[in-house]
Amino acid sequence: MTLTGTQTEIFPKGGKISAEHCIGNAWMKLLVPNDGMLHCQVGNVVFEPGARNNWHRHPGGQILIVTEGIGYFQERGQPIQIIKKGEVINIPPDVEHWHGASPESECTHIAITTNTQNGIVVWMERVTDEVYNQPANGN
Amino acid sequence: MTLTGTQTEIFPKGGKISAEHCIGNAWMKLLVPNDGMLHCQVGNVVFEPGARNNWHRHPGGQILIVTEGIGYFQERGQPIQIIKKGEVINIPPDVEHWHGASPESECTHIAITTNTQNGIVVWMERVTDEVYNQPANGN
Repeated sequence: MTLTGTQTEIFPKGGKISAEHCIGNAWMKLLVPNDGMLHCQVGNVVFEPGARNNWHRHPGGQILIVTEGIGYFQERGQPIQIIKKGEVINIPPDVEHWHGASPESECTHIAITTNTQNGIVVWMERVTDEVYNQPANGN
Repeated sequence: MTLTGTQTEIFPKGGKISAEHCIGNAWMKLLVPNDGMLHCQVGNVVFEPGARNNWHRHPGGQILIVTEGIGYFQERGQPIQIIKKGEVINIPPDVEHWHGASPESECTHIAITTNTQNGIVVWMERVTDEVYNQPANGN
């Protein structure tokens, strides 16, 4: 079977993510804008194979829920972790990390940015090919 | 690769929800347990046609993301709202409500309980057939 095709996209693709914060093509559909009541911002993100966002951190933390495909996630100082449909990643506040697709599969995830009263995101440097092409751990 | 069949289920069904809080069959797979760091609890809920939870409220609010099927959502004092795959519902803190499947379709949603430092859920009375069978608004 293929990961594209007759798939089950839940949300429209949304807008292209700025090349300032991303290498390759990625799209974000905002599902819940940040507000002072729920203190969460929720978006659906689609990464093309090879696409990944820059290193960054969330002052209030973030939860990623992979809904389609196979992606990469890396915390600073740890190996790249392969992430797949149905997996959930909890990212503590201020932990530096990046995420994206794997080289040969798209990846779609819902991103829940938590405790937004503490801030949403602080962007850092790009994820170079050297970093992206490291060996990845996964099942 | 091992994504099973042509299926669209993202998560396993999880455990049956207690009949104390629900009419009909519903299942919950806990994706993110509550903790003192992210202050969010995330679960995937599957309702069989006709199933619905009791009236309840969340002291910190909740976000519902419908990923499959057609469901019902009602806030106290408002008409029943039909909710569908790809729709998102924001529930402010302490607003009394219930949700479930529509009479003829299963409904699956991700439930993100927010600001859990304020509490998770307060359960109330059952949603009677009289309430459930009111006319529903939707598109």
